[in-house]
Amino acid sequence: MAVYTDVSDEELEAFIGSYAIGALTSFKGIAEGVENSNYLVHTEAGPFILTLYEKRVRREDLPYFLALMEHLAARGISCPLPVHDRDGRTLKELAGRPAALISFLEGLWVRRPGIAHCAGLGRVLAQFHLAGQDFSMSRANDLSLPGWQALYRDVSASADEVIAGLKDEIGRELQHLETHWTTDLPKGVIHADLFPDNVFFLDDKVSGLIDFYFACNDMLAYDVAVCLNAWCFEPDASFNITKARAMLQAYEQERKLTDAELANLPMLARGAALRFLLTRTYDWLNTDENALVKFKDPNEYLRKLRFHQRVKSYRDYGLGKH
Amino acid sequence: MAVYTDVSDEELEAFIGSYAIGALTSFKGIAEGVENSNYLVHTEAGPFILTLYEKRVRREDLPYFLALMEHLAARGISCPLPVHDRDGRTLKELAGRPAALISFLEGLWVRRPGIAHCAGLGRVLAQFHLAGQDFSMSRANDLSLPGWQALYRDVSASADEVIAGLKDEIGRELQHLETHWTTDLPKGVIHADLFPDNVFFLDDKVSGLIDFYFACNDMLAYDVAVCLNAWCFEPDASFNITKARAMLQAYEQERKLTDAELANLPMLARGAALRFLLTRTYDWLNTDENALVKFKDPNEYLRKLRFHQRVKSYRDYGLGKH
Repeated sequence: MAVYTDVSDEELEAFIGSYAIGALTSFKGIAEGVENSNYLVHTEAGPFILTLYEKRVRREDLPYFLALMEHLAARGISCPLPVHDRDGRTLKELAGRPAALISFLEGLWVRRPGIAHCAGLGRVLAQFHLAGQDFSMSRANDLSLPGWQALYRDVSASADEVIAGLKDEIGRELQHLETHWTTDLPKGVIHADLFPDNVFFLDDKVSGLIDFYFACNDMLAYDVAVCLNAWCFEPDASFNITKARAMLQAYEQERKLTDAELANLPMLARGAALRFLLTRTYDWLNTDENALVKFKDPNEYLRKLRFHQRVKSYRDYGLGKH
Repeated sequence: MAVYTDVSDEELEAFIGSYAIGALTSFKGIAEGVENSNYLVHTEAGPFILTLYEKRVRREDLPYFLALMEHLAARGISCPLPVHDRDGRTLKELAGRPAALISFLEGLWVRRPGIAHCAGLGRVLAQFHLAGQDFSMSRANDLSLPGWQALYRDVSASADEVIAGLKDEIGRELQHLETHWTTDLPKGVIHADLFPDNVFFLDDKVSGLIDFYFACNDMLAYDVAVCLNAWCFEPDASFNITKARAMLQAYEQERKLTDAELANLPMLARGAALRFLLTRTYDWLNTDENALVKFKDPNEYLRKLRFHQRVKSYRDYGLGKH
């Protein structure tokens, strides 16, 4: 929930006037998106989303994200499309922030995904991975193993204030991953943050993906692991193998997972759980009490990590013998 | 900035299904409105605003607010129109909260109103007052003199934590108003909270009024005084007499102020300033530090109050001899 930056009347009018989209007729802050300020903009040409990029997003990464959306949309992946201004630019500036106007995507994110949603997500995730194969730009995943180690150094002194024993538990997990983590799996563009609030549905069918601001080049199966964590656990922290099976089978209808990817899936799922455990712990410790953002619970991801620590093989995620 | 209540997928679908407005295609929390949770809803029939009424709004007052919007819209005042469900109801329930779906109003509120905006506001305020004359329902203003006295009792012990000397300064002003406050002026429905963020413009012309959740029956000129405070001061707290003149002259083109209203305008402006000074002081002292709402500065209204204390007559607000 976030609108961090105030935009003056004059700045806004000049900004909208730089696009060939007619006059502005409505402008409302949207209470979604934690990283950036988002506004619903109506003009005579229809609805748009205006994003002002705040703190965590690096300005030099924005051309990658915006070009990726254009690349994906051109290959049939439904996602917001950056609007070009009269000079052809998509990355602009407003109120001292990098800014982009993107198309408005109809659809609703599902508060509690069901089996059909998990299957829909699995299919579109694989389509996204395939569509990204010929994307020419590249961005490193700064939230992979070296990034986790750096985050751990930042939070270790205070981690036990968040959850008793957390420092040692993360330390042991990092040691395990340092030994077993591989990077030798099929790579490409991954979304890296494909939580339910970033996937829109209409009539239980995926209508589009949003929020590509963690996208990067990394192992495709790591993206699958992020989604296993984000979509296939129940609110009581139990793992729903039926949802996982639906998601993985739908993924494999579009892109078959390799034997190496399957063998590494439990380790990837541990890493993906650790990544969100670390960032949530960091946010918990570093967020100003007056922040306009709701805390996300680190404990949720600690429980998911512990689940994956007990997993023996990819079959525990509901996939049959390959 | 506010979305306080989470709505489940099933509740939302059933709620929207109770209206004849087609299927839901988008649902986003809006980061505007401090008192309630507001969502932008798209359906096959177009855009709507869904409001869940929180804390401060009393459920028994909601029929007044919703009927008022219908009354005003029928008399040509552009404002949101409550949508009737298939059973004819406008006041419903969602996620355990009173809820209403209202029409979406195009327009932008002006961050820094100019002279033309103040004139537009003055004209539509008078039109609103005239349109409300035959509204049959009535609601007392619980934020007039007795309400201020009650608020003062609540904040007096801690007021000096907000601004040094505030307790005595408010106490003296209340004593003055208790002696000089009149209620013997033309009455009717007032908006009572017509700040710039509740007035939409398109091309510098008023396109509509929103947020009627402080509306009540009281002296019409008190509403004028609220607007003098909300629209005619500059960010540096200086009074802009040109804006005030534009507002008041435009008001009088639609509805002439009586001699008694003019004579009482400085006192009404003091009362209106005190009202917002008191509620902002109360909110400052009582808002949880984790609240999702930005504090509004009580000091702004203390400076406005002091300005009106020095005013000698309505002529100081820019109106010529009547």
